[in-house]
Amino acid sequence: MTQTQLTVGLGDRAYDITIGPGLIDQAGSLLGEIAAGRHIIIVSDDHVAPLHMQRLCDSLSPVARQLDQCVVAAGESSKSMAVLAQLLDDILAIGIDRSVLLIAFGGGVIGDLAGFAAASLLRGVDFVQIPTSLLAQVDSSVGGKTGVNAKAGKNLIGAFYQPRAVLADTSLLATLPARELRAGYAEVVKYGLLGDAGFFDWLETHGDQLLALAPDALQHAIHTSCSAKARIVEADEREAGTRALLNLGHTFGHAFEAVANYDGRLLHGEAVAAGMGLAFDLSVELGLCPQQDADRCKHHLRHSGLPSGQKSLPAGNASAEILLAHMKHDKKTRNGVMHFVLARSIGDTFVHGEVPEQIVTAVLERGYDAV
Amino acid sequence: MTQTQLTVGLGDRAYDITIGPGLIDQAGSLLGEIAAGRHIIIVSDDHVAPLHMQRLCDSLSPVARQLDQCVVAAGESSKSMAVLAQLLDDILAIGIDRSVLLIAFGGGVIGDLAGFAAASLLRGVDFVQIPTSLLAQVDSSVGGKTGVNAKAGKNLIGAFYQPRAVLADTSLLATLPARELRAGYAEVVKYGLLGDAGFFDWLETHGDQLLALAPDALQHAIHTSCSAKARIVEADEREAGTRALLNLGHTFGHAFEAVANYDGRLLHGEAVAAGMGLAFDLSVELGLCPQQDADRCKHHLRHSGLPSGQKSLPAGNASAEILLAHMKHDKKTRNGVMHFVLARSIGDTFVHGEVPEQIVTAVLERGYDAV
Repeated sequence: MTQTQLTVGLGDRAYDITIGPGLIDQAGSLLGEIAAGRHIIIVSDDHVAPLHMQRLCDSLSPVARQLDQCVVAAGESSKSMAVLAQLLDDILAIGIDRSVLLIAFGGGVIGDLAGFAAASLLRGVDFVQIPTSLLAQVDSSVGGKTGVNAKAGKNLIGAFYQPRAVLADTSLLATLPARELRAGYAEVVKYGLLGDAGFFDWLETHGDQLLALAPDALQHAIHTSCSAKARIVEADEREAGTRALLNLGHTFGHAFEAVANYDGRLLHGEAVAAGMGLAFDLSVELGLCPQQDADRCKHHLRHSGLPSGQKSLPAGNASAEILLAHMKHDKKTRNGVMHFVLARSIGDTFVHGEVPEQIVTAVLERGYDAV
Repeated sequence: MTQTQLTVGLGDRAYDITIGPGLIDQAGSLLGEIAAGRHIIIVSDDHVAPLHMQRLCDSLSPVARQLDQCVVAAGESSKSMAVLAQLLDDILAIGIDRSVLLIAFGGGVIGDLAGFAAASLLRGVDFVQIPTSLLAQVDSSVGGKTGVNAKAGKNLIGAFYQPRAVLADTSLLATLPARELRAGYAEVVKYGLLGDAGFFDWLETHGDQLLALAPDALQHAIHTSCSAKARIVEADEREAGTRALLNLGHTFGHAFEAVANYDGRLLHGEAVAAGMGLAFDLSVELGLCPQQDADRCKHHLRHSGLPSGQKSLPAGNASAEILLAHMKHDKKTRNGVMHFVLARSIGDTFVHGEVPEQIVTAVLERGYDAV
């Protein structure tokens, strides 16, 4: 299996995403001038570092002027202002100047945390994403959303800040727990549902191979997902419009996560999977989408071991009233109006800002999960 | 005295600076569409709020959809990650969405803190600067540098983030302690020294009137200073080149502040004043600048009640060795090379990145302060 590459075309902030197996062993050469002769600081967590840090260091140390590591505790709780402040102090204590390069080496938490650290250090230093989870490889490492959680909710503090490069090493997924692989797969399915019916067809046929880590299937799915995300981010970097399509399933999903209190019982991808099922239910309820498309969406999610509605959530289910209250506090809400990504069919979605609350309530109350 | 206005021309991030007496009583109308119908949160400190908050609220409440306040402790210690985290939690607890408008109402600390909060909340919400100190009116409120201090040094964490408008109400300076007024005046003198010999001439004649708060002198000096800063920021928003001229006196000044441990005994403007005197000394030492220009610079600083070298510093003086060590950790230092803004004459300065360390040491050791 060979590498593939694509570009996120954002003018003077453009960058390449390289996808393939074994990339961390070639990071020094793949990053080229981005890494050569620089002071490099790798930010990782205590799950990823013991497994893979040595190989990345072996690859980077021949090209770096100085190489340091900062390792934080694995898990969502590290995406906090307290851990960010400590990380910034630790990095500054090493001694840096504006020519430093940060590398985010981990899953979505590390990418978001280290990316926001890079955005904030000396008012902005370069960083590179080396995502180690499927979720991070197809979603959070691309597009420049960085940040931490607040008491009031997830991702409420952060910056739009693009990396200089992304290296998605598909062979790292072999050490990912199966449940996390499935949760990441929910975001892969999302790209089919939101704008690429052909890709959804392909996933119905090849999804099982992907979840069994077949290299060709992984490569194709990650490349297609990153390419879809790149096109959307290019069109709307700061989420003024079409980027919101990436939130398919997220208005419901964030509410499930809030109810589950981000305690690890519910993974983000699981919440999004259930949210996508509900977004199709809501689209059917509003007469926008054929029932058979909603059924097909939910069937594929369940077939892949993912929830497709509240009932199959491992955690986070609650009354319609409680879920609605959380949705109204979502950061996409403006002047109290909830925004949903709805579907006309598989592969054809749009943002709808005027959904009557009682219809949302009805869909939540029904909470059906069977085809 | 009437108001004057100028524009910081930064394309889609352009904004107006309005300068004049009594502006906070007209803030609602002056801000126009920026404030109309919005949820507005004023961030201030416990020195400024008791003096002026009511008037600002009276002006804004007729136009705002909702008006809230967050008041932090006055002083440099509020420019920290801990206070930022608390402020963000407090603002989020009020309940906001992306249409919120933050107003930074205070001196440089409040502008830097609230500006960074605005940059980070929901990955960026609008904010307005209403600076209440002379330093903030001529310097920190313009140009989009925001941030907080770290254990390792001042302003090491932050963002480039432009306000939507700046209102510099000159009548607020009447409540500013005289020492802070003089410290702010050092930054006014800086604009003459760094690029406008005619303005320096004018300050030699009218500086005393300005320090006595004569309205015409204040208006002219603040307008000229903001205009100079606007032109520099337009040319180099992210400090890749000429913006560094604004650091005249700051390489030395930051070292004095580090030695004084930011404990309030030494004001930023005082440190910069002494630093500007030393920058002229260094320029003379290097054969770049006539002695008489250095003398004239230092004489005017002392005449205005400001330090012009180490000896007249209220705090922060130290051995050349200690000061040099701090200078090497300045965030403008790259790969260990110190950058100085040096002068060919009053009004003609440039960035020099190759000053031999022993000459800097010699100037620091001499530490002369008399003309």
